[in-house]
Amino acid sequence: MEKVSIGTSVFVFPMPVVLVGTLAQGKANFMTVGWVSRVNASPPMIAVALGKHHYTVPFIVENGTFSVCVPSADMREKTDYCGLVTGEKTDKSKLFDVFYGSLQTAPMIKECPLCIECRLVKAVELPTNDVFIGEITASYADEGCLSDGKPDFKKVDPLLLTMPDNGYWALGERAGKAWSDGKKLMSNAGK
Amino acid sequence: MEKVSIGTSVFVFPMPVVLVGTLAQGKANFMTVGWVSRVNASPPMIAVALGKHHYTVPFIVENGTFSVCVPSADMREKTDYCGLVTGEKTDKSKLFDVFYGSLQTAPMIKECPLCIECRLVKAVELPTNDVFIGEITASYADEGCLSDGKPDFKKVDPLLLTMPDNGYWALGERAGKAWSDGKKLMSNAGK
Repeated sequence: MEKVSIGTSVFVFPMPVVLVGTLAQGKANFMTVGWVSRVNASPPMIAVALGKHHYTVPFIVENGTFSVCVPSADMREKTDYCGLVTGEKTDKSKLFDVFYGSLQTAPMIKECPLCIECRLVKAVELPTNDVFIGEITASYADEGCLSDGKPDFKKVDPLLLTMPDNGYWALGERAGKAWSDGKKLMSNAGK
Repeated sequence: MEKVSIGTSVFVFPMPVVLVGTLAQGKANFMTVGWVSRVNASPPMIAVALGKHHYTVPFIVENGTFSVCVPSADMREKTDYCGLVTGEKTDKSKLFDVFYGSLQTAPMIKECPLCIECRLVKAVELPTNDVFIGEITASYADEGCLSDGKPDFKKVDPLLLTMPDNGYWALGERAGKAWSDGKKLMSNAGK
């Protein structure tokens, strides 16, 4: 099939939807983020890329910590709300049941099935966004979302975001097994 | 629900599956990557976090370019294969129909519904991984995967990866609208 050009400001894959938590002027604050990825294997690190104008930004630097919580699909309205209103004008500290881990300044959300506490290790300044890289110091899960002690994503029921259609999506059916499905091609090649 | 600790080496959200392309010793090479995110709004940038030992790594630096292609779910076996074998030992240049854009050194995959060309703008060294940040200089789509000129993710049919269960997943049902579903809570608050 022939390709057509679709410009440069593209979002070509579904993004995981998370809530980034900070302690801001003594109150828990949460912002909705889709630009998030694991970035280092050992020690485990995660990065979030936030527009520089966000209320959250200076508090990550001030505290040297942040949290990343994964909402389930049934938290869609509150999750979206956290992306619609700024902590500068709206107190979001009562929106969720909040808890803290050992870092003490990274508020997490009890309703979220999975939560991570991070210690800031590096901030990378880009033209419009700051990329905050945090070492994962602890993570917490609802026992009911685990199978054999590990996250079971059918139970977690996370949200995905696509742009520019601004769609929230559920995770679909399991389609295969990574580091396994391609082995057929290895044996076909006689390896 | 009470939370249980699940350690620090966690993968708490589904990750988009992409193929990162480089020109390596004159041949197109592709590796499978799940640690990928948009990181800057303007100019548009994307980051991939690659283990330092990967064959791909020095060629991104040498060329100053790389590509990010999104395979559809029916490319699952070839996609997985690219994560199983290293370009150091296996020639992956004939696995796909390859094309090049204006950067000339960022090979892309015709079979992939969405492809991005990137110019390297920053490399961030972390302990075990290098994060390569690229400016998106062009992107290409199959016309059949667009609706109103924009990616239609039901047609793209991308793969998602979860760990540590190593599952590939399809995108599920559309669950809502971002920057919209939370407005109900704004009006409830009288705003």
